[in-house]
Amino acid sequence: MTMRDRYEAVRKRSLMLAEPLSDEDCGAQSMPDASPVKWHLAHTTWFFETFILERFEEGFAPFHPAFRVLFNSYYNGIGERHPRAQRSLLTRPAMREVRAYRADVDARVARLLAAQPGEELLHLLTLGLQHEQQHQELILTDVKHMLAQNAMWPAYMDSALARAQAAAPLAWIAFDGGLADIGHADAGFCFDNELPRHRQYVAPFALASRLVTNGEYLAFIEAGGYRDPALWLSEGWDRVCELKLAHPLYWQRDGDGLWHEFTLHGLQPLDAARPATHLSLYEADAFAHWMDARLPTEAEWEVASAGVQTAAGGLHPAASHGDGLQQMFGECWQWTSSSYAPYPGYACAPGALGEYNGKFMLNQYVLRGSSCATPPGHARASYRNFFPAGARWQFTGIRLAR
Amino acid sequence: MTMRDRYEAVRKRSLMLAEPLSDEDCGAQSMPDASPVKWHLAHTTWFFETFILERFEEGFAPFHPAFRVLFNSYYNGIGERHPRAQRSLLTRPAMREVRAYRADVDARVARLLAAQPGEELLHLLTLGLQHEQQHQELILTDVKHMLAQNAMWPAYMDSALARAQAAAPLAWIAFDGGLADIGHADAGFCFDNELPRHRQYVAPFALASRLVTNGEYLAFIEAGGYRDPALWLSEGWDRVCELKLAHPLYWQRDGDGLWHEFTLHGLQPLDAARPATHLSLYEADAFAHWMDARLPTEAEWEVASAGVQTAAGGLHPAASHGDGLQQMFGECWQWTSSSYAPYPGYACAPGALGEYNGKFMLNQYVLRGSSCATPPGHARASYRNFFPAGARWQFTGIRLAR
Amino acid sequence: MTMRDRYEAVRKRSLMLAEPLSDEDCGAQSMPDASPVKWHLAHTTWFFETFILERFEEGFAPFHPAFRVLFNSYYNGIGERHPRAQRSLLTRPAMREVRAYRADVDARVARLLAAQPGEELLHLLTLGLQHEQQHQELILTDVKHMLAQNAMWPAYMDSALARAQAAAPLAWIAFDGGLADIGHADAGFCFDNELPRHRQYVAPFALASRLVTNGEYLAFIEAGGYRDPALWLSEGWDRVCELKLAHPLYWQRDGDGLWHEFTLHGLQPLDAARPATHLSLYEADAFAHWMDARLPTEAEWEVASAGVQTAAGGLHPAASHGDGLQQMFGECWQWTSSSYAPYPGYACAPGALGEYNGKFMLNQYVLRGSSCATPPGHARASYRNFFPAGARWQFTGIRLAR
Amino acid sequence: MTMRDRYEAVRKRSLMLAEPLSDEDCGAQSMPDASPVKWHLAHTTWFFETFILERFEEGFAPFHPAFRVLFNSYYNGIGERHPRAQRSLLTRPAMREVRAYRADVDARVARLLAAQPGEELLHLLTLGLQHEQQHQELILTDVKHMLAQNAMWPAYMDSALARAQAAAPLAWIAFDGGLADIGHADAGFCFDNELPRHRQYVAPFALASRLVTNGEYLAFIEAGGYRDPALWLSEGWDRVCELKLAHPLYWQRDGDGLWHEFTLHGLQPLDAARPATHLSLYEADAFAHWMDARLPTEAEWEVASAGVQTAAGGLHPAASHGDGLQQMFGECWQWTSSSYAPYPGYACAPGALGEYNGKFMLNQYVLRGSSCATPPGHARASYRNFFPAGARWQFTGIRLAR
Repeated sequence: MTMRDRYEAVRKRSLMLAEPLSDEDCGAQSMPDASPVKWHLAHTTWFFETFILERFEEGFAPFHPAFRVLFNSYYNGIGERHPRAQRSLLTRPAMREVRAYRADVDARVARLLAAQPGEELLHLLTLGLQHEQQHQELILTDVKHMLAQNAMWPAYMDSALARAQAAAPLAWIAFDGGLADIGHADAGFCFDNELPRHRQYVAPFALASRLVTNGEYLAFIEAGGYRDPALWLSEGWDRVCELKLAHPLYWQRDGDGLWHEFTLHGLQPLDAARPATHLSLYEADAFAHWMDARLPTEAEWEVASAGVQTAAGGLHPAASHGDGLQQMFGECWQWTSSSYAPYPGYACAPGALGEYNGKFMLNQYVLRGSSCATPPGHARASYRNFFPAGARWQFTGIRLAR
Repeated sequence: MTMRDRYEAVRKRSLMLAEPLSDEDCGAQSMPDASPVKWHLAHTTWFFETFILERFEEGFAPFHPAFRVLFNSYYNGIGERHPRAQRSLLTRPAMREVRAYRADVDARVARLLAAQPGEELLHLLTLGLQHEQQHQELILTDVKHMLAQNAMWPAYMDSALARAQAAAPLAWIAFDGGLADIGHADAGFCFDNELPRHRQYVAPFALASRLVTNGEYLAFIEAGGYRDPALWLSEGWDRVCELKLAHPLYWQRDGDGLWHEFTLHGLQPLDAARPATHLSLYEADAFAHWMDARLPTEAEWEVASAGVQTAAGGLHPAASHGDGLQQMFGECWQWTSSSYAPYPGYACAPGALGEYNGKFMLNQYVLRGSSCATPPGHARASYRNFFPAGARWQFTGIRLAR
Repeated sequence: MTMRDRYEAVRKRSLMLAEPLSDEDCGAQSMPDASPVKWHLAHTTWFFETFILERFEEGFAPFHPAFRVLFNSYYNGIGERHPRAQRSLLTRPAMREVRAYRADVDARVARLLAAQPGEELLHLLTLGLQHEQQHQELILTDVKHMLAQNAMWPAYMDSALARAQAAAPLAWIAFDGGLADIGHADAGFCFDNELPRHRQYVAPFALASRLVTNGEYLAFIEAGGYRDPALWLSEGWDRVCELKLAHPLYWQRDGDGLWHEFTLHGLQPLDAARPATHLSLYEADAFAHWMDARLPTEAEWEVASAGVQTAAGGLHPAASHGDGLQQMFGECWQWTSSSYAPYPGYACAPGALGEYNGKFMLNQYVLRGSSCATPPGHARASYRNFFPAGARWQFTGIRLAR
Repeated sequence: MTMRDRYEAVRKRSLMLAEPLSDEDCGAQSMPDASPVKWHLAHTTWFFETFILERFEEGFAPFHPAFRVLFNSYYNGIGERHPRAQRSLLTRPAMREVRAYRADVDARVARLLAAQPGEELLHLLTLGLQHEQQHQELILTDVKHMLAQNAMWPAYMDSALARAQAAAPLAWIAFDGGLADIGHADAGFCFDNELPRHRQYVAPFALASRLVTNGEYLAFIEAGGYRDPALWLSEGWDRVCELKLAHPLYWQRDGDGLWHEFTLHGLQPLDAARPATHLSLYEADAFAHWMDARLPTEAEWEVASAGVQTAAGGLHPAASHGDGLQQMFGECWQWTSSSYAPYPGYACAPGALGEYNGKFMLNQYVLRGSSCATPPGHARASYRNFFPAGARWQFTGIRLAR
């Protein structure tokens, strides 16, 4: 695919994700960690305008001077920002104007691409598209969180969610360990946090063949998992007590005691065979503890993933089928026990783009794999996703290790 | 005017107020105290459905069962409520559906009205319309607050705000005091908190002939009013320090030090002749203290208002002109020093409607008069508006007393 | 009594109140609203040093320059203050040094008194002694709150609390109302908030002959009083839900379901005949609502108190006995429905002493009478005590009105 | 040394640390993270009573049944706990009683020791003593924090703090890296978090020969280090902005602009040659960034420490002198970039003692070495101290790496 085709495909997909939504849906924000869809559509455009057009376009003038502030996410190097928790108050520009903003920037990028783009421009465009793909995943998780606050349980997509067959039985797959090279290796794109490739010593270990299912997680609940402090990290137990947690984020029981799960297809009966998802690291760790297992380190996960094909999912994690190592990609991000830290020798880029990853390497934990919401083509074995231990609104699940 | 005409006029006016706004504008909520325009449009309709249709319509069925919860404001007697601070997350129902909800309820109310309505129905309809008029004022103040969070300073109405002539000079108008009957007297509608009419002893007093102007308030600022604790109530001074307050809510200085005021017409140069508005009781009291004056009690205000005609305003308070007691109605609500308390002998209605006023009679202060945002025909001398001392997003101003 | 004798008596009584306590007890602070006993002992001394010695003593030098900051409560006019919530961190000066501070200031005041003191000095000394008496009451209520946080339920005074006889039956005593003069009248001392004496119109009313008892309040609890929002002011109901309130501050049930009350004599079985105490205005109002009664206004209370003798109490409110209007003084402060506001014509003193009362006249409610913790000789009919509606650590009770 | 001698020595040292303090000093608590000295003295005793006497003493009866709750720190397995933030409210038991509690438990432990103690008892006693030594360090850091809230700047120890010579110049010491065995190796005591010893691959690295000095840190401040977001981790910069941080915890400038540092010897002029201390990980990381260096990993630190002798300090970190790797022990704990995580194969003890370390392995960072406040004999190369990234009240400093 040419850069031009890739650019068009990725940019079009973002708008496509907004299609089932009204302008009202696109403006709402359910918590500071989530953003309105409109904001995602504008911010990803701002990224191209700020880091590419401003640098490579002759006679650059911004589409609208206020957008520099309104749609800056967290780049101190670019200047002021609209407060993160108040993005739903940006009723102006309207969705219509944001679409015009996207079209304008796209046309200008197309002009740059028509004129023999240099390597740096191509690299920044690739970064911009990868960045937009990250926001495509957030569009789905953020809108899910927003819809879940509405007692009418509106669906993002009205189509039904098929009841899964039984899940494949859980098997343990052993790995030898030893010295391993960790980090991105091939010539394709990667984020700076996947570099440099470096050596680690990994002791022998085993991974579960698939993700933990709703049925297994329900057994944990029914065994009193949320009432036994001995299973929990101290911070996790504090959270359980403070928020009176008793189940995953989108689970609820109806009047008859039957469990349901809110999904992008609306409220659905809980499907025991599908992976348990929307779990915090606290929950993942407590469940593992209860199973006399543990979470993998990110190095273990990466070692195990050698040769596994990536896969893309739908709007909800699907049940496992088949033998061997399953569900590494395309269902749920998998919590690791590894705190998000720079690889030895890591150096972040100079200037504002250096704020992309490095400054977040503290008090967050690495998730590996990809989820059903990850755009096709975005996943790879060395990818390091990261969230605070308490985050539950992403499609996060549990891969056990020993 | 017949009830039918009044009903239609009031209901139509609410939609008219939403006309300059997009669906996105109508969905946003800038703080828990303010509500989205869409919510106001739905809640006022819910009021008619819940307190009138449910009671008087044969074979009543709700327009949508979930709306009972979604659009209940604070009536414990009705049951569960959607959380107040999260009203902007109700992207469903859409504006379109809320319009349909309004049309449906209006048609059913029209049918009730066509069939010789009894006195209680007429009373409840009047209450419902007065209630809707209260929300019409909130539509303007809430949307103003929301637009003010956007650094693009969008106007609700693009028309210009004319520069006022100089304000009339401030004069003191004396009143004799003595025994006075306070509270609603005539046969027209009033809220329960205006009753019963009762006797009070009022000592001789004087009122300022007009509201305090922006020019006068600016002098207070320039004299260091926001830096001198001796002028402030203790709670007010704590607020000044905590929020670093230094001017009224919507004032700001540009890069050249010139003062501007955000209005429903957008950002405007500060007009010295217009009334100072969007002030807390803390600020009103401190200013009065600085002027060696005080705020009136609500009894004094009501005594003084005898014979004064009500007036309706535009989208921003206008400067005073003429002699005698000016600006009692139609410009800014006027803080009094009276805490909001039941009149002697007050009894609130039975059932859920009894929650309309009585349960709020604590830690709030009475404002008298009306503002530019008050709907025509809604103001009267015995009207008791009330807000916590720190509220600033209403059109609140200062009437001095001695 | 000469001023010298009065001075000695009051000053000695403060130390006497600290006698049952260890230095450790005297240093602790259980919440920002309460202060350590040591701080009370030092602050009352600071008051004499700052407002009297500094002004009248020739060649004045402070006992310790840092004390000006450490023991200033809330006087902006005096300058900086040690943070209120951190008074327990003032382990230095030690109790021993605070006693020395008291002795030093007392000796210097005695020298001033020996030299023909003028009227202003005498007035300020009286104010200082009244101020110290106010803190004597706080010493008891603050230390009670502190001891109540300790699961060992330590007693301030080990002596037993006798079980009361049955309370006198509740009768309603009628008053005619009419024009009344309210506020301090005679030549004795009063605080500025009791002035000026002024006229009010009071409608006919009736007062309960005695305070509400524990037995009566328990009936309210058992009838579901804490679970029915219809009984509560909106703010009160929010508090009930947020803090899960279900009984007065110091009540608790043991494993057998028997009610106990923590007192200055330690944990005691609940005595049905004694007055219910440590109630918020929210609770008092809800109880009155449940009884189809209301709380009195402060004017009604003052009218009713004409001719009633003040009385001083012990360490816990005693049951009523006898006929007529009982328990106006010496048992529990009585919540009124009157917000704390300046009397018409009120003027606060110039300078820092003007901060004594006026700046607190907002969002607080007046309590009348006196409590068992009020020092002998400190109570009078025109006295205006005041606290926020949610305060419960004072000896506050309920006098019903109709 | 026999266990008996060791027991006596350690237990005596805790009381010795309280000697310069009054009972009032020993009762105060300046923040939830810190505890009153009295509580430390009681809790360490509770540890012996609960984990040793209760298990090994025949006919065990607790010294006081309430102490089980009052002096439990965080062991869910033991049951209820007095709220952590309210430990200063435990004015009872008095210091005198806590001393009696210590003496009683000591006598009973002595009896156990007299009767041929088994291996498990000896192991638990060792653990109890190591635990008590940890609290000895906290006694000093907690009391320092408490005294620092008092504007009189009281000293823990009145003796002077000598002005240091110039610090040794900073040199870089290179290490080869390679496969290394990390974790406790010899037969002596270690905590469970130092095990199991395991293999890691460590790339070649260099460590600074000594800690960062006050002079160097001051240069960072003067170069605008606290005003440049590019130097900071995102969470650190948020903290800087929110708390308006501009210098280490105990630094302050006097009226002449001269820097002082609050120490256990009281307020002292800042000594440029001594190590900078009381720094958060945020500050350590930003400083390292500014120096184009980084913080070491805990594995690097442990590799480098091979063969280094431990050392014990005074009441404040001393300046470096001499060549080679200096100040690894006895001055400041050294922040590493390693998040606190279980070593591969880590298993925590069964029962309540398993709560000692494992449940805290999240969102905390490892510090290595020891500080001036660490008791003699308590330090070792494999020791893993840990605190949240924002903690500043420990003696924490900066060791740079490359």
